[in-house]
Amino acid sequence: MTNAAHSQSSADTTSSTAPQAAPLETLLALVKQDLQQVNETIIERMQSPVALIPQIAHHLISAGGKRLRPLLTLATARLCGYQGSDHIKLATCIEFLHTATLLHDDVVDESDLRRGKSSANAIWGNQTPVLVGDFLFSRAFELMVEVGHLPSLGILARASSVIAQGEVLQLLTANDTTTDEDAYLQVIQGKTAELFGAACKIGGEVSASPADQVQALYDYGNYLGIAFQLVDDYLDYAADQETLGKTVGDDFREGKMTLPIILAIAAAKTTGKDDELAFWNRTMEHLEQTDDDLPHALSLMKAYDTLEATRVRAREYGTRAHQALSGFPDGPYRRALAEVVDFCIERAY
Amino acid sequence: MTNAAHSQSSADTTSSTAPQAAPLETLLALVKQDLQQVNETIIERMQSPVALIPQIAHHLISAGGKRLRPLLTLATARLCGYQGSDHIKLATCIEFLHTATLLHDDVVDESDLRRGKSSANAIWGNQTPVLVGDFLFSRAFELMVEVGHLPSLGILARASSVIAQGEVLQLLTANDTTTDEDAYLQVIQGKTAELFGAACKIGGEVSASPADQVQALYDYGNYLGIAFQLVDDYLDYAADQETLGKTVGDDFREGKMTLPIILAIAAAKTTGKDDELAFWNRTMEHLEQTDDDLPHALSLMKAYDTLEATRVRAREYGTRAHQALSGFPDGPYRRALAEVVDFCIERAY
Repeated sequence: MTNAAHSQSSADTTSSTAPQAAPLETLLALVKQDLQQVNETIIERMQSPVALIPQIAHHLISAGGKRLRPLLTLATARLCGYQGSDHIKLATCIEFLHTATLLHDDVVDESDLRRGKSSANAIWGNQTPVLVGDFLFSRAFELMVEVGHLPSLGILARASSVIAQGEVLQLLTANDTTTDEDAYLQVIQGKTAELFGAACKIGGEVSASPADQVQALYDYGNYLGIAFQLVDDYLDYAADQETLGKTVGDDFREGKMTLPIILAIAAAKTTGKDDELAFWNRTMEHLEQTDDDLPHALSLMKAYDTLEATRVRAREYGTRAHQALSGFPDGPYRRALAEVVDFCIERAY
Repeated sequence: MTNAAHSQSSADTTSSTAPQAAPLETLLALVKQDLQQVNETIIERMQSPVALIPQIAHHLISAGGKRLRPLLTLATARLCGYQGSDHIKLATCIEFLHTATLLHDDVVDESDLRRGKSSANAIWGNQTPVLVGDFLFSRAFELMVEVGHLPSLGILARASSVIAQGEVLQLLTANDTTTDEDAYLQVIQGKTAELFGAACKIGGEVSASPADQVQALYDYGNYLGIAFQLVDDYLDYAADQETLGKTVGDDFREGKMTLPIILAIAAAKTTGKDDELAFWNRTMEHLEQTDDDLPHALSLMKAYDTLEATRVRAREYGTRAHQALSGFPDGPYRRALAEVVDFCIERAY
């Protein structure tokens, strides 16, 4: 489970060098000055008299992320014609909340520690990163209070609570081979899509847009987030053949119930393959795995075409994200936001 | 370090059966109906479709705590003549923030797990309690947004960030025998006194009191919090002779630099006792301890009277807390708040 946010994070990072990064570059060019101010605000507001705090925060925040979530806030605010400067602080809040989530998502239990982790926790243990996450979380709320915009505060407070619930739900579904697609969607809605939705909704709220536009922006972000996570979970198994520098099968080794496996188990049930069900039970439920198991798991996913099915689902949510933008007038920001959807999905190829 | 909040928590719990609980009973009688509403709000707002969340929250929140911090918000609001109902939700926020802190403070690293912990983490591991802490933290902010009172939001956002910084500082001073009294005060200011101060300040803000009264309430809570933590750290070594049901020397075993030890090391330096400095270095810095070491540490604290000196410091801060109340007219609430100070200090006897 700890890799959920990690795979998001690493995907953010690695894909920036891939050829399909062009769409984000369109957006980056449009909000270049805003983003520069966000970066300055991030550096300024992660400071603390306790020097270790900015050091750890820096470790994650500056780890080459392309700031996808704050970019969404900047772009949706501009899409709605916003002329003020509050979106800078609000976009910073989004990045702080995301980083706090990453830090808390990395908390490991004894068994995980034995496996070794290349995260903030591997360097500083569990305790300090959790507290630094709390610090960033608090700083986000301090920034929001400075802006003094209660609707934005409400959106982000609610998003935080939905994220925490989604993360707990993910822990509960781990190693549980009865997890179905609905439960999976509930998990990724909480752990990923809600913050994407909130990042976009805030762009609409801060520019005092009509309620239907604000809702459309939330829907856009929300569907984009679901598509983003579906592709992430697809890439966890498919990336070896198609992209470089990604470890395949982390989710398998952790017994994380993502869609490619959920669909493979459903297919085994439908076709009455007891040997396959026994395989999934042993490897996912009991985490009893040998070196041959990941290749076998991949062959089962291939046999039932569940990786492709996962990618198809991502495209469906991408289409919904596109549709959510249809009510906005054509222009550079709408086009850039549409390209973000394609970027998030295309990185699967 | 994980025991910092724990010892607060256990002190909250155990002392409610001690004879000196009477002062809190005065306060409890005054705000009985308000507190009933706070308890109902706590139960209502810790609910989640993810059933494990209220289960874990309940484990801590209902663990017999006497709700000292939310009581301070209720009492200070009434002291200022507040007639509304927002103080109920704000007091609930204070309890949620406190509980979130306890959950995060209990995060353990591998070494701690080996020692075994009787905390939420011992039952549910590290990950879930951290996420439940985040959930309560978020719920606190959702409640504040409902109240819609920006000054209170600012106070609590700031308090949260100060608390996180204080906790990190405590981790940094652990096992560091060069920690002096100033650094120690900075730690307990952050990890304990700030939330006491914020709880009281909010009572003044929600009743729209003049700035000097709001500041006086913050000072009262802040000094009370410092005294409270000083007594806690005193009791960690002194409780065996005087109270029942408390494990002595947890702080020693963790290498936590609290005032009784800081003063003993300072005395050894002043008197040039190299053997004592070597003892503290071995036991606190390197955590190389035998069964004879705690009794020896206690004998050194006794020789330099550092436990009594710690209690004297607590009384000094208690006096300052009393003085902070002097500007308020005499009446049942002021008297009850004054009695809280005596209660927090007297529990040392």
